[in-house]
Amino acid sequence: MEKIKQLQQDFADFMAKTDFGGNPAELYAPISYTILQSGKRLRPMLCLLANEMFGGDEQQALWPALALETFHNFTLIHDDIMDQAPLRRGKETVYQKWNANIAILSGDAMLAMAFQYALKPEKGAELAQLLGKVAREICEGQQMDLNFETLGNVTIDEYLEMIRLKTAVLLASALQMGATVAGAKEADIQLLYEFGINLGMSFQLQDDILDLYSDVATFGKKHGGDIADNKKTYLYLKALGLASEKDRKRLEHLFTLRIDHDEEEKIEEVQAIYDRLHVKEASERVMADYDQKAFKALEAIDLPAERKIHLRTYAELLSGRKK
Amino acid sequence: MEKIKQLQQDFADFMAKTDFGGNPAELYAPISYTILQSGKRLRPMLCLLANEMFGGDEQQALWPALALETFHNFTLIHDDIMDQAPLRRGKETVYQKWNANIAILSGDAMLAMAFQYALKPEKGAELAQLLGKVAREICEGQQMDLNFETLGNVTIDEYLEMIRLKTAVLLASALQMGATVAGAKEADIQLLYEFGINLGMSFQLQDDILDLYSDVATFGKKHGGDIADNKKTYLYLKALGLASEKDRKRLEHLFTLRIDHDEEEKIEEVQAIYDRLHVKEASERVMADYDQKAFKALEAIDLPAERKIHLRTYAELLSGRKK
Repeated sequence: MEKIKQLQQDFADFMAKTDFGGNPAELYAPISYTILQSGKRLRPMLCLLANEMFGGDEQQALWPALALETFHNFTLIHDDIMDQAPLRRGKETVYQKWNANIAILSGDAMLAMAFQYALKPEKGAELAQLLGKVAREICEGQQMDLNFETLGNVTIDEYLEMIRLKTAVLLASALQMGATVAGAKEADIQLLYEFGINLGMSFQLQDDILDLYSDVATFGKKHGGDIADNKKTYLYLKALGLASEKDRKRLEHLFTLRIDHDEEEKIEEVQAIYDRLHVKEASERVMADYDQKAFKALEAIDLPAERKIHLRTYAELLSGRKK
Repeated sequence: MEKIKQLQQDFADFMAKTDFGGNPAELYAPISYTILQSGKRLRPMLCLLANEMFGGDEQQALWPALALETFHNFTLIHDDIMDQAPLRRGKETVYQKWNANIAILSGDAMLAMAFQYALKPEKGAELAQLLGKVAREICEGQQMDLNFETLGNVTIDEYLEMIRLKTAVLLASALQMGATVAGAKEADIQLLYEFGINLGMSFQLQDDILDLYSDVATFGKKHGGDIADNKKTYLYLKALGLASEKDRKRLEHLFTLRIDHDEEEKIEEVQAIYDRLHVKEASERVMADYDQKAFKALEAIDLPAERKIHLRTYAELLSGRKK
C-alpha cells in the first residue's frame, strides 16, 4: 500500500506542476476546472503501476499517465454534452456551467494536449500511436452507446462489446503504455492488456450496479440515474431476458418514459423487478468471471510474483476483493 | 504547373487508397462524407510542395498531407456545430445531415485519425508534435472567434491575431511538416513558416472579401453570409474605424439583427456603407502587404530559385497574382 500511495502522490505532484492554463481564458478555464477536480486517477495509476512492475523509469511514465488522465477528462466533457448531463462527480459539468460550444472546443484542445503529453518521453511515437488507437475505439464505443438509445433490441453481447470499447480498452491501454515505457516483452504486454480488458469489464459492470445499489454520498451521482435515463445496462438487458412476458412489457414501457414522469417511482418499480429476478447477483457472477480471467492473465506474466504485488493489490481494491 | 498537377493527382490517389470506413457505420459515414468531398486540398498541397522543394521523399510526405486534410475537415465539422451552419461547400453539413452528437463524435475520431496518420512516417514523433501545437492554436483561434460574437469592441489587431490562429498557422504548419520530412535546415523551416503565416493572413482576408464580393456559384457559400451572421470581419472593423458617427451607429445596429430580419436588405445596406468607405480596397492593400512579406520570406530561403518555382507558382495562384 505504501507504493500505491507514493505513486498517487507522485502523480498529484506532477499534475500540480503542470500548467493547464492559457489564452483565451474561456478555452482553458474549463480544462483546469475539469482535470483538477479530485478523482481516482485510475488510468494514470494503472500506467504507473505497470511501469513499476517492469522496473521502468517513473519520470518517463508520468507523461503517458498525464496523457491518459487528460484524454479521459476530454471524453467526459464531450460525453456530458451528448448526454446533456448537468452534474458529474457532484459538480456542474462544463456543458452546464459554460455552454455546449465551449465544451466542444475545450474538449478538442484537451484531446490535442493528451497527444502532446504522450509524445514527451523517449518512446513518445509508440505511446501516441497507442493513444490514437484507443481514442478511436472509445469513439466507436460511445457511438454504439448512442445507437443503443434508439435501438429496440440490444443483445447482451452487443452491450458487452460496447463497454469493452467505451471503458475497458482505456484501462488496458493505460497498462500497456506503462509497460511500453518500461520496455516489457511483447508477450507480457499482451497478457497485461488482457488483464486490463477483463478488469475493465468487471469495473464497468460494478459501476452499473453501484449506480443503483449505492448511496449518493459515496458515489457522487444521482441514485438510479441509469434507469432515469433509460440506459440499457447489463442489469436491464439481463432482466429482460429473465422476465415473464408481463414484466418484460412493463420494463420496456418504463424505459420509454422521459424525465418529466415521477422519477423516484419509476426507479423503485424497476428496482423491484430487478430484485425479483436477482439480476444484481447475475451481474456479480459475470463480474467474478471477468475478475478471474483478469488475475489469471496477471499470473501468467513472466515476472516473479513479488514484482506484481502492487498492481495486484491496486486491482483487488478496485474489484472489491480487498476493502 | 505540371508538377502541381502531378502532386494533386498523387494526393487524390493516396486518398482513394485510404480506408476511411469502419464500425459502427454511424461514426464513420460522416467522416468519408466530409473528407471525400472535392476540395482544394490546400494544406496537403502546401505540405507536398514544401517537401518537394527541399528534395524530400514524396511517399513519406503523403502521410502528414493526409493528416492535415483529416485535421482540417475535423475543424470544419466541429465549427459547423458551433455556427449551426446548414451548408458547407454547397452541401449539407454533418451537423445538419446527421445531428450534433454524431458531428461531435465523428469529429473527435477524425482528430485521433489525423494523429495516427501524422505518426506513420519516420519522423512521425516530430510531425505529431507539430500537429499537437497547431491543433491547440486553432482551438484558441476558434474560441477567440466565438468570443467576438458577444464582445462589443473588437480591435483590428485582435481580429488579425484571431485569423492568424484560426487559419494562418495551419498553412504555415503544413509547409513546416513537408520541410521537416525532407530534413530541411531549421533556419529555412522558420522562413518557410513565416511565408505560410503571411500567405495565410492574405488568404483569409481574401476569403472575407470573396464572401461578399463574389457570386455564389464559384464560391459555394451564401453571398454576404458573414454580414448575415454578424461576423466581425476585417471589412466590418475597418468600416467602423472609418465611418462617420452616424454610419458607425447604423453598422453596429445592423450587426445586432438576427436572421429573421430581411437578410438581403441588410446585406445591401452594409455593402453600400463598405463601398462608400472603400474598405474592400483597404483590405486589398493589407492583403498585398502580407503577400509581399510572404514572398520576401520565400526568397530568403537558402535554395536556388529554380527549386522554389512550384511552391511559388502555387502560392501565386492562391493569392490571385496568377490566374
